[in-house]
Amino acid sequence: MQVNKQIILASRPQAMPTSANFSIEESPIPQPKEGELLLRTLYISVDPYMRGRMNDRKSYVPPFQVGEVITGGNVSQVVESESDGFQKGDIVVGNSNWALYSTVKAAQVTKINPDLAPISTALSVLGMTGLTAYFGLLDIGQPKEGETVVVSGAAGAVGMIVGQIAKLKGARVVGIAGSEEKIGYLINELGFDAAINYKTSSDITAELRQACPNGVDIYFDNVGGSISDAVLNLVNKHARVPVCGQISMYNSEQVDVGPRVQGLLITYSVLMKGFTIGDYASRFPEGITQLAQWLVEGKLKYAENIVDGFENTPQAFLGLFAGENLGKQLVKVADPS
Amino acid sequence: MQVNKQIILASRPQAMPTSANFSIEESPIPQPKEGELLLRTLYISVDPYMRGRMNDRKSYVPPFQVGEVITGGNVSQVVESESDGFQKGDIVVGNSNWALYSTVKAAQVTKINPDLAPISTALSVLGMTGLTAYFGLLDIGQPKEGETVVVSGAAGAVGMIVGQIAKLKGARVVGIAGSEEKIGYLINELGFDAAINYKTSSDITAELRQACPNGVDIYFDNVGGSISDAVLNLVNKHARVPVCGQISMYNSEQVDVGPRVQGLLITYSVLMKGFTIGDYASRFPEGITQLAQWLVEGKLKYAENIVDGFENTPQAFLGLFAGENLGKQLVKVADPS
Repeated sequence: MQVNKQIILASRPQAMPTSANFSIEESPIPQPKEGELLLRTLYISVDPYMRGRMNDRKSYVPPFQVGEVITGGNVSQVVESESDGFQKGDIVVGNSNWALYSTVKAAQVTKINPDLAPISTALSVLGMTGLTAYFGLLDIGQPKEGETVVVSGAAGAVGMIVGQIAKLKGARVVGIAGSEEKIGYLINELGFDAAINYKTSSDITAELRQACPNGVDIYFDNVGGSISDAVLNLVNKHARVPVCGQISMYNSEQVDVGPRVQGLLITYSVLMKGFTIGDYASRFPEGITQLAQWLVEGKLKYAENIVDGFENTPQAFLGLFAGENLGKQLVKVADPS
Repeated sequence: MQVNKQIILASRPQAMPTSANFSIEESPIPQPKEGELLLRTLYISVDPYMRGRMNDRKSYVPPFQVGEVITGGNVSQVVESESDGFQKGDIVVGNSNWALYSTVKAAQVTKINPDLAPISTALSVLGMTGLTAYFGLLDIGQPKEGETVVVSGAAGAVGMIVGQIAKLKGARVVGIAGSEEKIGYLINELGFDAAINYKTSSDITAELRQACPNGVDIYFDNVGGSISDAVLNLVNKHARVPVCGQISMYNSEQVDVGPRVQGLLITYSVLMKGFTIGDYASRFPEGITQLAQWLVEGKLKYAENIVDGFENTPQAFLGLFAGENLGKQLVKVADPS
């Protein structure tokens, strides 16, 4: 082993983050203590929610600290184990540093089965984003056969799983995404009933009305802002709105102001529920089992947008806010040995 | 019997309605057909939701028509019955005209027991407003012992029942209302833990923070607007927000714009659910039974603000938007014979 590299939060971003907010530093490779593991990072997951952690603001996860290493969900391989539950060579998923090597408490990571599916899926369809789609749609949205489900950020890691599960439940599925490539993928590859390109649409309300002739029963919201305002105007009585993300707002320096939703919620008896995947931690095994079953049965497709090279992690993260990724954005750091 | 009088929607209001939007017309007393009842109105319920029906706009109840009689919830006495289920003299509650006399289909009304409680309570604590409080708080809010419940419009017909049920469930209860008389009533008569006068408060957020040292677990929203914005900023993880009314906005001619709530819903995994009492129609017997039991046990108090005289109905309705009523606003039209 040689030297370690870590990605540090160099400064807090104003509005849109840039590569200047990150620095890569060399450091010694850490030594695992009793009960710990030394991990070699294989895949890094970059996720929109991490933008919130770059602000110095209370939220559902504590902020990153300037000058300290960034942490997130990674797939790694055990290099040294000081825990009975793990052996050298095991492939694991869990929170660790944006670094070539990290030490973690053994309880922080979970072993994954590399024979079930490519190990990167532990960060996508069989990981946090798949579980987010699964619980947000099924627990909050509760789709019924013949209902209409609209999902924004539809070609993202969460949105594409939401739409496919909704199809499996017999719903009409309408996606909103930001490029013709994504629109084509949703319709032709994933079987969405309709998809709307919000970047080229001259009248998103009219397009939504056409795509949802029976109104909207579930709106799975990944983006917020004016797109969500437009969808909410089409909700049916007893509609459900799982609120998963607001990526259109994460880099805004202003307070997010828009039409208040409460009047509409009363008129149509709408349920709107924000959530984060941690709310469902006790049910992860159920979710992973079902997602894996659909995957091996060929009922669920997934896409990963994999950038090569540890040093490209900040750039891959920044690309999320330009809508560059189709499916889950990952960074490949190394192959397992 | 002599002539009938009816209150007609003379014109649709712009912003705040005035007495000029109503006219009183004389008309013949109608004759009940087979399966109908002729009712003599005893009490008229005036309710904020009726403001919405004065607009020509789709909502959960159809709009009133200009030139036609206004309808709403009334307590009446049967004068003539062409239905086997009712006899002359029965006291009933249900939807009928703002009129001295109405005919209704028998299925539109329900007999009430005048020995259980004053018959006016069928329009207040044992009627729609009591049921609205009961189901909104218990089904959506689900208060747990030791939690903090904030209710706006706290001295209104719904709010005061919400607060008392929350106390029965062991919660800390904070009310928001608009006069010192109301604040005193909430604290001294109903046992609220704290109450805030939004009309005189110089910093409602600071007052709320002081009144809710452990944050807000349930916000029962009757008013909307900036008061609700202030409460929502104090929600705890997994808070619940039954959205019952938005009276501050009912007379606004502008689109109701404010800070979007979705980001906050995600951060704190908040459930926000709009509802109208019709959502719970199948459970009304359960609600009325429980409310009546609390009432006879002396565990639930109620207040009614009763204006005398049919002709004063429009004025009583308009008073709702000035916050004049403590408790349920009713109009007494006649005593039972």
